[in-house]
Amino acid sequence: METVYLNGKYLSSAEALISPNDRGFLFADGVYEVMRWYGSGFLAGHLHLKRLKRSLHEIRLFSAEADNFLSIGRELIRRNNLDGQQALVYFQITRGTAPRTHQFPLPPVAPTCYAFAKAVVPDQDTGASGVNVGLVNDIRWSRCDIKSIALLPNILAYQEAVEKGYYENLFVRNGIITEATHSNIFFVRGGKVLTHPESVYILSGITRTLTLDLCRMLGITVEERALSSDELPYVEEAFLTSTSAEVLPVTHLEGVPVGSGGPGPVTLTLQSAFREMVEKEIRPE
Amino acid sequence: METVYLNGKYLSSAEALISPNDRGFLFADGVYEVMRWYGSGFLAGHLHLKRLKRSLHEIRLFSAEADNFLSIGRELIRRNNLDGQQALVYFQITRGTAPRTHQFPLPPVAPTCYAFAKAVVPDQDTGASGVNVGLVNDIRWSRCDIKSIALLPNILAYQEAVEKGYYENLFVRNGIITEATHSNIFFVRGGKVLTHPESVYILSGITRTLTLDLCRMLGITVEERALSSDELPYVEEAFLTSTSAEVLPVTHLEGVPVGSGGPGPVTLTLQSAFREMVEKEIRPE
Repeated sequence: METVYLNGKYLSSAEALISPNDRGFLFADGVYEVMRWYGSGFLAGHLHLKRLKRSLHEIRLFSAEADNFLSIGRELIRRNNLDGQQALVYFQITRGTAPRTHQFPLPPVAPTCYAFAKAVVPDQDTGASGVNVGLVNDIRWSRCDIKSIALLPNILAYQEAVEKGYYENLFVRNGIITEATHSNIFFVRGGKVLTHPESVYILSGITRTLTLDLCRMLGITVEERALSSDELPYVEEAFLTSTSAEVLPVTHLEGVPVGSGGPGPVTLTLQSAFREMVEKEIRPE
Repeated sequence: METVYLNGKYLSSAEALISPNDRGFLFADGVYEVMRWYGSGFLAGHLHLKRLKRSLHEIRLFSAEADNFLSIGRELIRRNNLDGQQALVYFQITRGTAPRTHQFPLPPVAPTCYAFAKAVVPDQDTGASGVNVGLVNDIRWSRCDIKSIALLPNILAYQEAVEKGYYENLFVRNGIITEATHSNIFFVRGGKVLTHPESVYILSGITRTLTLDLCRMLGITVEERALSSDELPYVEEAFLTSTSAEVLPVTHLEGVPVGSGGPGPVTLTLQSAFREMVEKEIRPE
């Protein structure tokens, strides 16, 4: 039986229960974070923690539990026997349980903190062959930089992708490609790596940040600029980045080959470099 | 002890518990509805039911429970001894509990259905004197016509209103006033009643619809057109409509008087007409 964390306790997932008056359930009044366990350590745990705190700050929610994010994550790995394996730790904080009113509870109530860990089986075939992605209108709110649980638009856009046979959907806002439903998107054009700059229209992905760092270390020219959808036919390569998929080649866009139609050389270089970086960073504890 | 409804059962609110793996809690993957009980009947219950079904349809969620909305509402009124009183019934349906993945659960799981009733004490002073509202940038998604539980932007905008001493905040999108954080907004200009037309940028409020009907019945000229924020200085009257506040005069906008600075004649006419309509519609059962 899976062990999860809820408000200070480690419980079997069947025992973990919340009130439907939790503001996470009634209002999506909360944020979350996901970090990756690579056998003996979390990758960039401090960056995930920093982003979690930023998300909390942006929705004006203070929770002392945020500081326990890494230690709760480790304990979930241990209790679920995920040491030595690859896993994801999910961590969510909401504004707590109170009678339904739009206003923040007054006096404030204890935030709800929920976390779980689950094994990840890296999909090496997909990583090697690349994926086909679609395009969808970006109808989300204008604070996509907050990792909030108000994910209904992402859900609907991702489900549409799945049903069309796409691995992901890329969001297009006013003709500009912002990001994917749960990944960031990178392009290679004219030998340069391009990705949407940090703004309120994208989540500042940790894997995005690490990939940009790798580009700079490897001497690959990077430009943080938005790509217009009109530029797509001229793109040489494309790839997604995310905590769960790392660096993933995009070989087709709505079925049309991107560049050669196979994983491109820059993508493959970054994919390898990312894995080497993980091996170097994550030392047995 | 309050009695609530959860997935086929009437329970004390303390006994009502859900899994944190409910997609309502993880993803805001659900919709809700609120209807008003006036002592012996719901006002426009069929319109609330119709809107609930539309919201479910738009997020591609099918739940047979939707058909029980009115009967569950009545039972909650009865069990909570709210007969003869004024009350609100809240009703929420989510895509159910499943391991976290953006994709709809496959095979589908049972939706979660949660409902509660609470007494309403009409604030007659506010209704008579009117309220002061603020303006805030509308950063919400572009499907505000769906009554989804992804309400974080509304929460943040409403909290800002409260802290500034405003009763509500009006959303302004690209210079256009759309609606308020949990109400629709109407204006009177040149003797005409104006309100944002039905679109993806506003929720089609039931009280909004009933008020438009009243205007037509009373021979008040109505134009469903968006008001630009530039027009605000030229507005003669303003009022909010919502299931809980009915027709509520807006006398000040960010502290500046609207028109005379008191409830205007058209507003008062509609407010009275609304109450008369309620008395006529709601007959003892």
